[in-house]
Amino acid sequence: MAQQHLEPTDATAGAATADALAGYLRAQATEFLRALRQHRENGGAAAGGSEASVDAARALRRSARRISASLHTFRPLLDPDWSERIRPELAWLSGTLALEHAYEARLERLLLALHRLSGAMLPVQSGGAAAASRAAGAAPAGAASGNPGTPTPDRGNLTVGAAKAGALLDRQLTLARTRAHSTALQALGSSRFHAVADNIAVLASEVPLSQTAATTPLLPLAAAAEDRLNDAVTALPLVTAGHPYNAEALVHGLSPDPSPHPQDAPWHQVRLLLRLHRYAREVLHNAEIVDVRLLAAGEALDRHRDASEAAAAAAQAARTPRIAPATAYALGVLHADQRHEVEAARFAFQRAWQKETVSTP
Amino acid sequence: MAQQHLEPTDATAGAATADALAGYLRAQATEFLRALRQHRENGGAAAGGSEASVDAARALRRSARRISASLHTFRPLLDPDWSERIRPELAWLSGTLALEHAYEARLERLLLALHRLSGAMLPVQSGGAAAASRAAGAAPAGAASGNPGTPTPDRGNLTVGAAKAGALLDRQLTLARTRAHSTALQALGSSRFHAVADNIAVLASEVPLSQTAATTPLLPLAAAAEDRLNDAVTALPLVTAGHPYNAEALVHGLSPDPSPHPQDAPWHQVRLLLRLHRYAREVLHNAEIVDVRLLAAGEALDRHRDASEAAAAAAQAARTPRIAPATAYALGVLHADQRHEVEAARFAFQRAWQKETVSTP
Repeated sequence: MAQQHLEPTDATAGAATADALAGYLRAQATEFLRALRQHRENGGAAAGGSEASVDAARALRRSARRISASLHTFRPLLDPDWSERIRPELAWLSGTLALEHAYEARLERLLLALHRLSGAMLPVQSGGAAAASRAAGAAPAGAASGNPGTPTPDRGNLTVGAAKAGALLDRQLTLARTRAHSTALQALGSSRFHAVADNIAVLASEVPLSQTAATTPLLPLAAAAEDRLNDAVTALPLVTAGHPYNAEALVHGLSPDPSPHPQDAPWHQVRLLLRLHRYAREVLHNAEIVDVRLLAAGEALDRHRDASEAAAAAAQAARTPRIAPATAYALGVLHADQRHEVEAARFAFQRAWQKETVSTP
Repeated sequence: MAQQHLEPTDATAGAATADALAGYLRAQATEFLRALRQHRENGGAAAGGSEASVDAARALRRSARRISASLHTFRPLLDPDWSERIRPELAWLSGTLALEHAYEARLERLLLALHRLSGAMLPVQSGGAAAASRAAGAAPAGAASGNPGTPTPDRGNLTVGAAKAGALLDRQLTLARTRAHSTALQALGSSRFHAVADNIAVLASEVPLSQTAATTPLLPLAAAAEDRLNDAVTALPLVTAGHPYNAEALVHGLSPDPSPHPQDAPWHQVRLLLRLHRYAREVLHNAEIVDVRLLAAGEALDRHRDASEAAAAAAQAARTPRIAPATAYALGVLHADQRHEVEAARFAFQRAWQKETVSTP
């Protein structure tokens, strides 16, 4: 397996000390405060929110993730009480803010898949479906080739099944998204959030370092994060994943557990470790590093996670009481389709990971 | 694309004339009569039949296909009236004899897939399921790792859905198989069949050649059959097929037409043309030619056909009135699973076809 290691000869990275970490954390904290201000100014309170407010929420999550990751990877350099207290709060915040977008993206993914599978436009008219219709214009030919308009009854019950499945998913995931939006609003107005924002405001000016920070080099800590990633990747079934059409992702596709497959967990874990590794490199180089290989691997794991959760949502929707058999059938096809997306994403990760490192700093 | 051509320098093949064709046809006719005798002696009339009678029916079809193919490819060498009269009769016979086995194999394929997908033994007890259980012993770990016995209610409705889907498919395909068995028995007892058998008996001693047969070389006719194959392969979407996880086979997976997808037809056609090519080579070389590449390509296309028909059977079963949503869901997953088998088979064909020719005569 191709191993990628931090360049020990890179002077910038090798010499990185507490100053570099403090600089990075201050920059991320500043970014967090900027995004927070932007979010408030752009009507973050409106349901769905404006595009600017969505961007601001994404920027908030983005810096929260980076701060949290840096506190984790470079723990020995930071005031332990402070960093142990702030990290779960940042996780709570980015988790809460991520949910609304996750439900929206999941619905869009599932409706696009239904379009592709039924070769027809769905008669669903809500925001999610409209977004899917927009996206379908840029999708492969199969997704956009169907006739627009509602399916007529003579097109058979399975097409109607796909439409009903789409409507059901739209209802369920829109409800979940609306709830997530309310929860996020409540969170942003809570005293718990204000405490987080206060902490970040402090961080923007003064990073609470530990007493040994000045003499603790960053490189070994970043290397340890990379080792954890490599170890986790080594434990993945990459030989199977590299063999196309191994049918592994759909094994137990009809097992009674509707929650995400246990076989997905190690891949989700690698996704998180890959992110920690990426952020650690940013700290060392004091810049965003574009590494095509890591980028492709990360995108494959994002796709893996999205497809895994979409498949679970389809399975969950199929358990709705009193749905028509045609609806359930369409959800079954959709579930299997997304599980194959999971398999395809593993294949893509394996391919990306095996490639040689090509870095452009 | 790797092209394979008949070796024009091969003395045996190049010199092959009407004698070679007549010898081949006599041998196949003799084989047909032997298989027919064996079929009668081994209780071909019993429902399901003994193993020997199944083998005999397979041998009957095997020689009928070869005779029919040779009459087609080397038409100019044969008495046109006779060959035009006998070919549709041979097609009728092998088609009728093939159906029973096809339904049995389809059921076995679908039940094995349900095993794999549900990770549990199905409570179906009929012949088809028993055969599937036997086969499951030799299947990958996922298929055999489930607990034996009937699923308990607390395992959730989707596992019960898989079991119900299996029972439904078992009922429908066993009924179809039984009908096909009766039809085959009626066919073998019909005067129409006796006329075919009489014609084959004549063929075993004297092949009705055309007046120009003696001066017509076989090679250009065999080469034409190969050209038809190559042309049909060239028209296939092989670039897409060679790209793993292209999701092409499941496009329109929820379209209203429950019959085999139109996109499958060119592949089925290549399967038939590949067979004609193989048999033409047998005539030229007066022997079965083991060509690893053609063998792998042919097996991929057989798998393509089987998965395509199994997927259609699952979709058809989902249209049974008054089935439970959980049953329909399981059939949807099963349909998509088999459509991915279709896609996998196309990938395998593309891989096999691109390989260089490795012949062992």
